[in-house]
Amino acid sequence: MSKPKGFEKPAGVRDYLPYAVERLRAIERSVLDCMKGWGYRQIMTPTMEYYDTVGVASSTSDQKLFKLLNNRGTTMVLRSDMTSPIARVVSSLLKEEPLPIRLSYHANVYRAIEEEAGRESEFFQTGVELVGDDSPEADAEVVALAVASLRAAGVSTFKIALGHVGFLNGLLEEAVPGAEEARELLKQGLLRRDYVGYRETVSRLDVSAEQKEELQGILRLRGGREVCSEAKQLSSSKLAQDSIDHLCRVWDALEDYGVAEHVLIDLTMIGDFSYYTGLIFEGYAAELGFPVCSGGRYDNLLQQFGRPVPATGFALKTNRILDGVDGIQTERELPVLVQYTAEGRKAALQEASRLRSSGGIVVTRHVHTQDDLVALTEAAGKYADVISFTG
Amino acid sequence: MSKPKGFEKPAGVRDYLPYAVERLRAIERSVLDCMKGWGYRQIMTPTMEYYDTVGVASSTSDQKLFKLLNNRGTTMVLRSDMTSPIARVVSSLLKEEPLPIRLSYHANVYRAIEEEAGRESEFFQTGVELVGDDSPEADAEVVALAVASLRAAGVSTFKIALGHVGFLNGLLEEAVPGAEEARELLKQGLLRRDYVGYRETVSRLDVSAEQKEELQGILRLRGGREVCSEAKQLSSSKLAQDSIDHLCRVWDALEDYGVAEHVLIDLTMIGDFSYYTGLIFEGYAAELGFPVCSGGRYDNLLQQFGRPVPATGFALKTNRILDGVDGIQTERELPVLVQYTAEGRKAALQEASRLRSSGGIVVTRHVHTQDDLVALTEAAGKYADVISFTG
Repeated sequence: MSKPKGFEKPAGVRDYLPYAVERLRAIERSVLDCMKGWGYRQIMTPTMEYYDTVGVASSTSDQKLFKLLNNRGTTMVLRSDMTSPIARVVSSLLKEEPLPIRLSYHANVYRAIEEEAGRESEFFQTGVELVGDDSPEADAEVVALAVASLRAAGVSTFKIALGHVGFLNGLLEEAVPGAEEARELLKQGLLRRDYVGYRETVSRLDVSAEQKEELQGILRLRGGREVCSEAKQLSSSKLAQDSIDHLCRVWDALEDYGVAEHVLIDLTMIGDFSYYTGLIFEGYAAELGFPVCSGGRYDNLLQQFGRPVPATGFALKTNRILDGVDGIQTERELPVLVQYTAEGRKAALQEASRLRSSGGIVVTRHVHTQDDLVALTEAAGKYADVISFTG
Repeated sequence: MSKPKGFEKPAGVRDYLPYAVERLRAIERSVLDCMKGWGYRQIMTPTMEYYDTVGVASSTSDQKLFKLLNNRGTTMVLRSDMTSPIARVVSSLLKEEPLPIRLSYHANVYRAIEEEAGRESEFFQTGVELVGDDSPEADAEVVALAVASLRAAGVSTFKIALGHVGFLNGLLEEAVPGAEEARELLKQGLLRRDYVGYRETVSRLDVSAEQKEELQGILRLRGGREVCSEAKQLSSSKLAQDSIDHLCRVWDALEDYGVAEHVLIDLTMIGDFSYYTGLIFEGYAAELGFPVCSGGRYDNLLQQFGRPVPATGFALKTNRILDGVDGIQTERELPVLVQYTAEGRKAALQEASRLRSSGGIVVTRHVHTQDDLVALTEAAGKYADVISFTG
């Protein structure tokens, strides 16, 4: 390919000009402050991790990992999420820390290949991990905190959909026993939300009418708490039943949190099957067709780092909130212009210092002659005020 | 080599646990707020840039750049500083923006190879660029802002050494005319602060006694404003004389800023010759033997991106301040523990919400029986208070 031009940047990455940075920083600060209020303490980890540890353990598919070699020839990745790095830290530096551990983060993460589709290959996530508590209360805490975080980010109208990996696994195992391939096909249909394709796959399966009815029934399992009892009637699998019992208890806790109005159940939701192990959830803002947050329980991840403890968490998709939601807005504070000729310099710089120390924004400007001074009338929209020192 | 163990991270990168993050964030916020007060607006750029543009233009030597291929086979680098990316943005997205342009940043940057020496390959810089003003006042503004920024970062005792690339280039051209190799050798001696080696190189040169005296004289050019007149006597090169005149004017402006007590002149200082074009400076904290900030004028960089305008700037070496300076300290705010049995849950969660909305930090805990409640006496050092709800 041709050499990139001097001013070009790679596809899939972006520059944030001051106005965008102000909004992004306002969201970051507000959300992290919210998480702090819930007892989550902020952590930071490196951009680069070993491929063989964090890279392999992450929920990101291999071809979406950015890989590079360090100077010892070891393959490294640019982190694709913060959950695996935090699992590594909880299993190493924090291995003596008593459970539960509550950690928060705001970090940029990387995905190769996304650029093909015009999607971003570097973007921000703001999230939490709650490690060492597998109770329904822990799941509910994380969902309720997702609600609080979305509000803190300035997202006013949104719903959080709850699903359960265990329910789907239990039901599919019961309805299509043994047929791993067929189950995978059904999961793919649900993952793509291709319900027509899903129905067709079901109709072609070599299973009983009752089993087909069970599989088709999944598609109806979206709504409020009433979905829990419908789901329990649909499948008699113990795993499915236990999963729904757990989901009911989470819902009840969310009612006590006072956030049930933001929550719905969607048992067709599938998340990342290889990674999540229990309750999963996604947040949707009214304005947008794609999730602005996602999370769930991943009880098998930490054992890969040597500390086998349960965990749950979520991440806001901070860029989507920045770009797509009519949320937090910031207003540019115009600076005061302090301009001076050589004779006025000392007095001008002293005044600038005085104004700054009381919180003002001051730009100074040296002019050679009084003719070069900016008139107050030229300042409109650019400076809040103009002060001149000419000795 | 052997596979990394599950919990290992690459050499040269680090995890920041909550206490370190709190301090780093406090420094970041305080310094960025200070820069904002001087009219500098924050910008963010991608981690990855094209090697052929930003990579080549950066002041980092080629073997210290982290390189990777994107999926189109183009070589990219992890940014090694923020100056080149900002030069790219000023020449593209901001190309219509009137000069001068004042931008600030807080960003992680990357250096390969440093890990060999146990140095960090990812670290933070907090800095500014002032684009489009080549006056002594612009140089002075950036030095004075470096003073203000170091104070904002909690560094109490420090000195900023000023040098000038033009002075050294002019003097060396005059004293060792034509002999590019010898000049390079002398520069290397100054760069390594190997003054014995420098003297030996000078004594072996095939130049007049007067020229040798001029070269040895450089080593005396460290001190206060009086160094300016000594320097003007040492070399009659026009470039050297002009450079010293400029340096004097910067010093005078710094006196008007009221920061001359923090400044000294060190004309043996060399910076990066291929990159800087004029005034250069380094900040040293009393506690540390290496610079905590560095900066200077780079009037030739922006033309590489298609917008030939002068520029100057500096960056705090934020990690060195975090690790080495007895600066900003933060105190951990202990959370309130709100614990509850099933019967007390709703009231407990309401109380937690009430406390959080008034700025409190609250951790909630579900217990199965009253016997599991944490006693207030167990809470010392861990919780600020314990509140129990048992229905």
